[in-house]
Amino acid sequence: MRITVLSGGVGGARFLLGLRAICSPDDHVTVIGNTADDITLAGLRVCPDLDTVMYTLGDGIDAERGWGRRDESWHAMAELAEYDDPSAWFALGDRDLATHLVRTRLLAAGVPLSEVTRRLCARWRLGVDLLPMTDDPVESHVVIDAPDDGSGAAAPGQPEGEPGRRTVHFQEYWVRLQAPKAYLVTAVGADRARPAPGVLAAIADADVLLLPPSNPVVSIGTILAVPGIRTAIQRSRAAVVGVAPIISGAPVRGMADRLLPTIGVEVSAGAVGAHYGARSAGGILDGWLVDDADRSDLAPLRALGLRAAAMPLLMTDPASTAAIATAAIELARSAGAAAP
Amino acid sequence: MRITVLSGGVGGARFLLGLRAICSPDDHVTVIGNTADDITLAGLRVCPDLDTVMYTLGDGIDAERGWGRRDESWHAMAELAEYDDPSAWFALGDRDLATHLVRTRLLAAGVPLSEVTRRLCARWRLGVDLLPMTDDPVESHVVIDAPDDGSGAAAPGQPEGEPGRRTVHFQEYWVRLQAPKAYLVTAVGADRARPAPGVLAAIADADVLLLPPSNPVVSIGTILAVPGIRTAIQRSRAAVVGVAPIISGAPVRGMADRLLPTIGVEVSAGAVGAHYGARSAGGILDGWLVDDADRSDLAPLRALGLRAAAMPLLMTDPASTAAIATAAIELARSAGAAAP
Repeated sequence: MRITVLSGGVGGARFLLGLRAICSPDDHVTVIGNTADDITLAGLRVCPDLDTVMYTLGDGIDAERGWGRRDESWHAMAELAEYDDPSAWFALGDRDLATHLVRTRLLAAGVPLSEVTRRLCARWRLGVDLLPMTDDPVESHVVIDAPDDGSGAAAPGQPEGEPGRRTVHFQEYWVRLQAPKAYLVTAVGADRARPAPGVLAAIADADVLLLPPSNPVVSIGTILAVPGIRTAIQRSRAAVVGVAPIISGAPVRGMADRLLPTIGVEVSAGAVGAHYGARSAGGILDGWLVDDADRSDLAPLRALGLRAAAMPLLMTDPASTAAIATAAIELARSAGAAAP
Repeated sequence: MRITVLSGGVGGARFLLGLRAICSPDDHVTVIGNTADDITLAGLRVCPDLDTVMYTLGDGIDAERGWGRRDESWHAMAELAEYDDPSAWFALGDRDLATHLVRTRLLAAGVPLSEVTRRLCARWRLGVDLLPMTDDPVESHVVIDAPDDGSGAAAPGQPEGEPGRRTVHFQEYWVRLQAPKAYLVTAVGADRARPAPGVLAAIADADVLLLPPSNPVVSIGTILAVPGIRTAIQRSRAAVVGVAPIISGAPVRGMADRLLPTIGVEVSAGAVGAHYGARSAGGILDGWLVDDADRSDLAPLRALGLRAAAMPLLMTDPASTAAIATAAIELARSAGAAAP
């Protein structure tokens, strides 16, 4: 079976661990990783979501933190702070730095990100193919309130006298500012980005397409913003099943609750499923898994033309995560069997 | 008193510690640092001699090793090796990496190395001004025997049938290959390099110019190879005094014994002094300090027109190093008093 997964960072990576655990040697898993949270820090190109997937599946992750390397040290960052480096707010571990050094050197030599990622992953023996969604630069930026110090100018077109707004990179929004109120998220560069080599084929040729519980705005949303990917999903022969990233009206992890309002989507499992929509009605999903706590969303989801099912969605341990992956595959199979 | 010092790495840095200890608040020390051992590793611009001076005078040095940071860890390097990175043979510590990250980012933004060095040093409060010899790229390369595996082609003009030769960066020669037989050292780029801002003025305006016990080929020799610097020394109103880097026919540290033959200079304190030569005879020195063990060199040096003196030159502790600096200043004063 050919399984293709659109993945963000921590949630996607944990789901992939469960998926890999239930796959047979004949299965082939391709991961299309979000790159819109990539950022250049201290002159290095950092790809947080790709690296979280790589470290997680490569058994190099700090499992408790969910990102970065196990047994990490932070000496270089402490020294960057001593130098008043403007990137010192980000957490770049010493082991992690090596990944960014290799990547930055190869990118500077003209090697595309997809090939860089392939070379980095070769060391880690992931058991899956990890493809960046695009080799072109895409960065999520977030419009927020300017600080009260008056440094924020009114945005163009903004009524005079309104409080100032400013735009920050998503990583700054999330890591440095800890997710203040967001007005708008833009995937800068997405309109000109091309899917990385292999991405469209991995969608077209898949038997099953999965959306793990990743952020609908800055992970799955940015992957879908790359021209060609949404259409490829809609046309794929695969059954497409997603796992709700919201349980009981709150994100299991991350800041989806802060960002969903920027795209007019309620913070609920049902609303996110409805946002993606049924393929039969112009959306991208055939099936949608929600948590047992959100059973009341099942009927409205089915009314939209989606196969919907409920189960425990907290990825608390390998067994529960494998069960979620199994349920997603089963839902895909039943959706596929029902297809014309 | 204005004192200007031409310095390489470990030997120069230790000498500078002694010099700073004997200076009064009215004295002003400018260090012109060698940059020809600079190298780009893992995409980062590394300036070993500048950093050794900076860390030594900034009290961040690993004093026992003589280079790199105290309390250093090596996690990033270990990871680079796991990625088979071609730079993994060099020792880049995690704390040290921050210096190279800041430097590389600033250089990429168009900030000249002299300004980058000023900003890096601001943190360390050296008590001296540290100037790179040039803002232009200069790199010492060394011609050595090719490995026996036949990978070395005969160099152009080399007789057929001779063993192959190859050229390596000085750092690779010294750190990775541990100083095999050298045939030629070239300071690539030196002929087109311009002295960094402040360098010629620091030479012209000095009261005393000092050459610490640094390598005559790849430290002092490369500084002198930058067009304009040698002439500025010859014309300076300062008295110029050097400290022999050779004691009893051997370098105190480093590989000067391997490299002096490439410029036809015998490995002795007297021969190095004669190589620099007396300013009165077209050279760059007024005085030359040798170790007590090399007293027999004093008479030949004096015959060349140099003021020469002998004393213990091993920089074993702060007191002995300060004594050497004091003797160098004294020798300069007596030479200056004798000047017309």
